[in-house]
Amino acid sequence: MRIDLNSDLGEGYGPWAMGDDAALLTVVTSANIACGGHAGDPETMFATLRLAADHGVIVGAHPGYADREGFGRRIIPMTPAAIGRMVAAQVGSLQAVAAVAGTRVRYVKPHGALANLAADDAAVAAAIVAAIAALPGDLAVLAISGTELEIAARAAGLSAISEIFADRGYLPNGRLVPRGQPGALIHDADEAADRLIALLRSGRMPVQGGGSIPLNAQSICVHGDSPGALQLAQRLRARLLAEGVTVTPFLVPA
Amino acid sequence: MRIDLNSDLGEGYGPWAMGDDAALLTVVTSANIACGGHAGDPETMFATLRLAADHGVIVGAHPGYADREGFGRRIIPMTPAAIGRMVAAQVGSLQAVAAVAGTRVRYVKPHGALANLAADDAAVAAAIVAAIAALPGDLAVLAISGTELEIAARAAGLSAISEIFADRGYLPNGRLVPRGQPGALIHDADEAADRLIALLRSGRMPVQGGGSIPLNAQSICVHGDSPGALQLAQRLRARLLAEGVTVTPFLVPA
Amino acid sequence: MRIDLNSDLGEGYGPWAMGDDAALLTVVTSANIACGGHAGDPETMFATLRLAADHGVIVGAHPGYADREGFGRRIIPMTPAAIGRMVAAQVGSLQAVAAVAGTRVRYVKPHGALANLAADDAAVAAAIVAAIAALPGDLAVLAISGTELEIAARAAGLSAISEIFADRGYLPNGRLVPRGQPGALIHDADEAADRLIALLRSGRMPVQGGGSIPLNAQSICVHGDSPGALQLAQRLRARLLAEGVTVTPFLVPA
Amino acid sequence: MRIDLNSDLGEGYGPWAMGDDAALLTVVTSANIACGGHAGDPETMFATLRLAADHGVIVGAHPGYADREGFGRRIIPMTPAAIGRMVAAQVGSLQAVAAVAGTRVRYVKPHGALANLAADDAAVAAAIVAAIAALPGDLAVLAISGTELEIAARAAGLSAISEIFADRGYLPNGRLVPRGQPGALIHDADEAADRLIALLRSGRMPVQGGGSIPLNAQSICVHGDSPGALQLAQRLRARLLAEGVTVTPFLVPA
Repeated sequence: MRIDLNSDLGEGYGPWAMGDDAALLTVVTSANIACGGHAGDPETMFATLRLAADHGVIVGAHPGYADREGFGRRIIPMTPAAIGRMVAAQVGSLQAVAAVAGTRVRYVKPHGALANLAADDAAVAAAIVAAIAALPGDLAVLAISGTELEIAARAAGLSAISEIFADRGYLPNGRLVPRGQPGALIHDADEAADRLIALLRSGRMPVQGGGSIPLNAQSICVHGDSPGALQLAQRLRARLLAEGVTVTPFLVPA
Repeated sequence: MRIDLNSDLGEGYGPWAMGDDAALLTVVTSANIACGGHAGDPETMFATLRLAADHGVIVGAHPGYADREGFGRRIIPMTPAAIGRMVAAQVGSLQAVAAVAGTRVRYVKPHGALANLAADDAAVAAAIVAAIAALPGDLAVLAISGTELEIAARAAGLSAISEIFADRGYLPNGRLVPRGQPGALIHDADEAADRLIALLRSGRMPVQGGGSIPLNAQSICVHGDSPGALQLAQRLRARLLAEGVTVTPFLVPA
Repeated sequence: MRIDLNSDLGEGYGPWAMGDDAALLTVVTSANIACGGHAGDPETMFATLRLAADHGVIVGAHPGYADREGFGRRIIPMTPAAIGRMVAAQVGSLQAVAAVAGTRVRYVKPHGALANLAADDAAVAAAIVAAIAALPGDLAVLAISGTELEIAARAAGLSAISEIFADRGYLPNGRLVPRGQPGALIHDADEAADRLIALLRSGRMPVQGGGSIPLNAQSICVHGDSPGALQLAQRLRARLLAEGVTVTPFLVPA
Repeated sequence: MRIDLNSDLGEGYGPWAMGDDAALLTVVTSANIACGGHAGDPETMFATLRLAADHGVIVGAHPGYADREGFGRRIIPMTPAAIGRMVAAQVGSLQAVAAVAGTRVRYVKPHGALANLAADDAAVAAAIVAAIAALPGDLAVLAISGTELEIAARAAGLSAISEIFADRGYLPNGRLVPRGQPGALIHDADEAADRLIALLRSGRMPVQGGGSIPLNAQSICVHGDSPGALQLAQRLRARLLAEGVTVTPFLVPA
């Protein structure tokens, strides 16, 4: 049994920080770094890339709508082709700063509203994948398990990593229970850990209303943007290790 | 006798255009494309990269201070290292959009206040060159002839192209006559052409106050941001061709 | 018979211009000035306010989504209350620059996607009107005739000016023929003039499919963002004057 | 003996917070609120204005260079007139959001690099004061004691409030000991309190190298952008109250 833990990092901007990146980097094995769209700027990217390298954590690009005020959580109307070009520009930006930092971007994981759209909209998913495929660096795609993005990445011959969420409930159709509904969020670290350990053993995730579904999981997304989220991530990691799970990046360190 | 003609293109932003890029692309052999700092955005970059490719014009990145309101013409206080990271982020962004557009960025030419600073400040020049050297793509540097940037690029083993200006007067020390002083600007296309043809023949540029200096010239910078500038560029190209000068890119098309 | 002519001005940003404001100011009697959201910045606002004052043209604020890359033409998901605060911030900004310029903002006309939303969405219309009502300066609302925004402005006791479009076809329900459909745009200046003069005489506007509807018209919106649009506006004004229509602001100059 | 305590608030942006505004509002009597230049946006302004009103704290506008990435701490080259228009646009924006929030902006205090420049540059100070004087609302100016800004405000007939710093050492010429030099920062709350209480009693501030100078103090600037700064502010307030100093706004609440 092995699993990767990923989280969003480098989501500050200029003088502003978001979350405790240094603490998260002791928990995760892969870091999704904002690249100047919903968050981040060259200085934040550089500092986060160096910090990740110092912790031996694999880094990916975390592109989002170029909407800082909305933190990439709002759908900005764009054509799929324009989305592809925006994603390319952001990923290329992080790749270049990584080159200056002496490190390397290994994968791409879309952020927020863009990730939600790419999960459901095949044309958007295809445009994002085409942009990633055009870039150098043999980039993998970290995609929510079962989404259009994952399907598009596989179809294009890219390496696709299936991601699940530690702190979210699932519906029988494999989608997340929408925020605001009962069962959407799992606040208890041990409950989250129990579910994930069961999933790693059985390949099945319990769903709302009872029963379980098969779910492909190569990476678990954790959050660090609140003290509670960080503690959940820390506890989850400890529980996984205690159960004999190997917590390791899904990509081989360079 | 051969020479390259370069100009700044893709300097629009969102709904706003700057100059007549399509007309300029019939004049120049190298296009310096803004990359989201002082101007440009993924859509503008993509459209300009495609347009340049359609005209068979070599493209370079044209990074500047991330200061759209000031169009990159104001010095924004930054450390040399931060400048290097900013340049990397912008160039990487254009490289990635170029990959999506099926083309390739071949060189880097700093813009405006950043170019002026890199001409005189060795630490800034070195930081920019180090950033460019860290990037993939075997990027050349298009630098104003005789500047710290040119020196730094050569010292780092990068290919450095020496640029002169068609419409500017020179001082005995090889620097430009400052804007606002008599002789700073040459408005007459034939006068500009005469000077450049003489330079190409003799390797010497006339300077203010009489006499001439040796000046290394592999590319001539022309402008297209006013109808007069475009006409000067068109006339200059015609005169160069009429005098038997080969107008050709300084880099071999891929 | 009297009518106001209004147009959007000051829609540049930093180094970029949009349209020929000086020419338009010889045509219109009211100028809707961008205030830093979809376009505009303090320098552009100031210059446009001064130019309008020099031409004796009344000025209004033209707030839009804070989305320069999309020029305010994309819906950015926001609550009605947040829209109200955004509108207030933009209008207040223009009012302040107007105070420095020695002039005064007299009305508010929303821009682009925000105007479209406020036409149909009563909650958004109410939030915009509440924001305008909270501001000093006895601001009127320039609203598309028959829209929720016009209704909300009247309901709040604000002065509401009914606007129609010179270059757009109308549907039997009083809405515009959507762009992209046949009859959406009227390109011929005399056809546009004929329709408007008939409307001013009869109070009825011809609609697609035949027949006409009553339409309240106190101001005609014209555009200047292309040479053709400017010529249409100029011709329209000449025709109105030739027919004995008084072209005059809907608000009394201060 | 009476004194005002002021601090910078509302310096978040979009999803990012800066400091603990709620805690600071239990310490200060005047709040300088960022207005969309170096920090702030309509939502942040509104929330901070409401929070200040709930705490009965007077609010002022805190304009700065429109440079979020630099947090207004970098000099951006601008003419004095352009600075005046930028300040007007920002203050007007906050005034308008305050109107929507049912509250009122009472004074202006420039931020960061703009405040430093306005302290020393008479032309910039005059331009800022002229902009403030043009605005409605009978705005006062909160200026560092002894600066060009204070002089210009008084000369223009505006109400000028003299500000000193709780946590900074002073030079014999009345200026602050520059950051980075010994004695620049006072980290001990009681030492800071002792100095301020002595100043309130004697009208004289101890200076580096021994001795003291007369210093006009109507408001003390405290900070809340670190836990230590907040504790210093809290301790300072407690000490002032214990010594019988009345901590009260310099402006009468509306």
